[in-house]
Amino acid sequence: MDIVLYSAKDLQEWRQALAAALPEARVHRWSEALDIQADYAVVWKPPAALFAQQRGLRAILSLGAGVNALLADPALPADVPLVRMEDGGMAPQMEEYALYCALSELRRLPHYAAEQRAGRWSPRPLRSRSDLPVAVLGAGVMGRAAARALRAFGFPVGVWSRSPKTLEGLAHFTGEAGLRELLERSRLAIALLPLTADTTGLLDARRLAWLPEGAALVNLARGELVDDEALLAALDSGRLGHAYLDVFASEPLPAGHRFWSHPSISLTPHVAALTPFDAACAQIADKIRRLERGEAIGGVVDRSRGY
Amino acid sequence: MDIVLYSAKDLQEWRQALAAALPEARVHRWSEALDIQADYAVVWKPPAALFAQQRGLRAILSLGAGVNALLADPALPADVPLVRMEDGGMAPQMEEYALYCALSELRRLPHYAAEQRAGRWSPRPLRSRSDLPVAVLGAGVMGRAAARALRAFGFPVGVWSRSPKTLEGLAHFTGEAGLRELLERSRLAIALLPLTADTTGLLDARRLAWLPEGAALVNLARGELVDDEALLAALDSGRLGHAYLDVFASEPLPAGHRFWSHPSISLTPHVAALTPFDAACAQIADKIRRLERGEAIGGVVDRSRGY
Repeated sequence: MDIVLYSAKDLQEWRQALAAALPEARVHRWSEALDIQADYAVVWKPPAALFAQQRGLRAILSLGAGVNALLADPALPADVPLVRMEDGGMAPQMEEYALYCALSELRRLPHYAAEQRAGRWSPRPLRSRSDLPVAVLGAGVMGRAAARALRAFGFPVGVWSRSPKTLEGLAHFTGEAGLRELLERSRLAIALLPLTADTTGLLDARRLAWLPEGAALVNLARGELVDDEALLAALDSGRLGHAYLDVFASEPLPAGHRFWSHPSISLTPHVAALTPFDAACAQIADKIRRLERGEAIGGVVDRSRGY
Repeated sequence: MDIVLYSAKDLQEWRQALAAALPEARVHRWSEALDIQADYAVVWKPPAALFAQQRGLRAILSLGAGVNALLADPALPADVPLVRMEDGGMAPQMEEYALYCALSELRRLPHYAAEQRAGRWSPRPLRSRSDLPVAVLGAGVMGRAAARALRAFGFPVGVWSRSPKTLEGLAHFTGEAGLRELLERSRLAIALLPLTADTTGLLDARRLAWLPEGAALVNLARGELVDDEALLAALDSGRLGHAYLDVFASEPLPAGHRFWSHPSISLTPHVAALTPFDAACAQIADKIRRLERGEAIGGVVDRSRGY
């Protein structure tokens, strides 16, 4: 079995981990395998030339959970199954980041950071976890993991997704009316949705206004889910209290973008969940072995749905 | 039964909550009860004149958990039992603050905040919870609660206290050798100790140097536990990565103090655990009723030990 590998980052680390997880395969860097027609491609941000050159692929496996960039690539073959990363060690990291943001909001850490900068000693009243209901937008592996971690620590949690789902023990909302109902009752909204035609710009001025005065927004999924200008306007006016942003429509975030210096924005450089090489490659190896045996696997992208 | 109440802060709120919790008692503001010899005094930062005037007290109950200031008051009668607040709704807040600091360190949020200020996009490698062993200094109600919350979320935790204790399921260290062993293996140390003659200046240059390079310190107990100059030197040199400080030797922290503007310090104005009026007064009411029935109560201060 031949596998071509391409990653825009950490290629050497990915190759070692994938070769270790799949000792029965020959794992080639794509640029060194231009004479080989491989069985599988394992990719993150591949050049269009890869798909043009590899014509015999039985499946394309993404090293990331979000496949919106791959789906937007006109070179992506229409008839080859595309498989996205599911969890792959990322869910515990999303739990950590989501819980960090919820605790930061609960204990007013952005307020105290601003007071420290101003040299002011100004204690604020206590609030308890039940005073900070959280909306988790997205009911996939990441959204469910974050929602469960928040609930386990005592935060009231509601989960929203586009389509109805059964989520054991979690209050679930769906559709436009459900989104409004959930946002209106939440003091913190955490975006963990896939980026699709339906979700692009979902958090626009109209829907951000459904959050109560002073609420906070967390985006751990894709920058394009949020209308940047609407978010800035809501933060500028004080309607929203704070935003925790890990993802951006353009990455790295361009120099001079207002997000860098906005006092009500805490940003990190797309690190909320980093794919750990070993866990991710173990998952890919397992999926390739199942495909070889003709078994069903999780994470096959429904192209009409977009994830 | 007569109770005199004094609090340097929120006196009206305390009086309402205490009167509601103890309907069988007459609750007086001390300044309005100068002609009364009360049975109990419930106090936070009382003036020396209170003890000089009240000569028939059967017990003095503190509205705070730390009684170092009361013990240092020469007017405090030597023969009247002094009772400190135990938990009283503060333990869940300590859990929140401790977990917030551990998550902030784990996910390198101070680093990313500095990078944001500098306008730099610089992702750092992943680390997992098992990479961040935490030392909790203090095995009282607060220390045990914080340690259990951290362990429940997956952080390796060790607890240190001056005297040997049995702590179910928590690794426990004691004595000077135990403190060194625990600090040397921890990447985050959280001070939750009472302030006594033994613990004043405990975290000095010599003991801070036991923490590994780049480790972080959290102080949620009393400012005097830490040698400020030693801490600043360790942060200036980069030996320690960050400090999260909620308490200070002088409060409010004086204007111009280097802590305000140090890039490696995040500070809050003594809010890690605020005593909630209702829960605290329910505890005090319960203790007074037990004392009236001649029963033993928790939280009686051992003056030789200092807490």
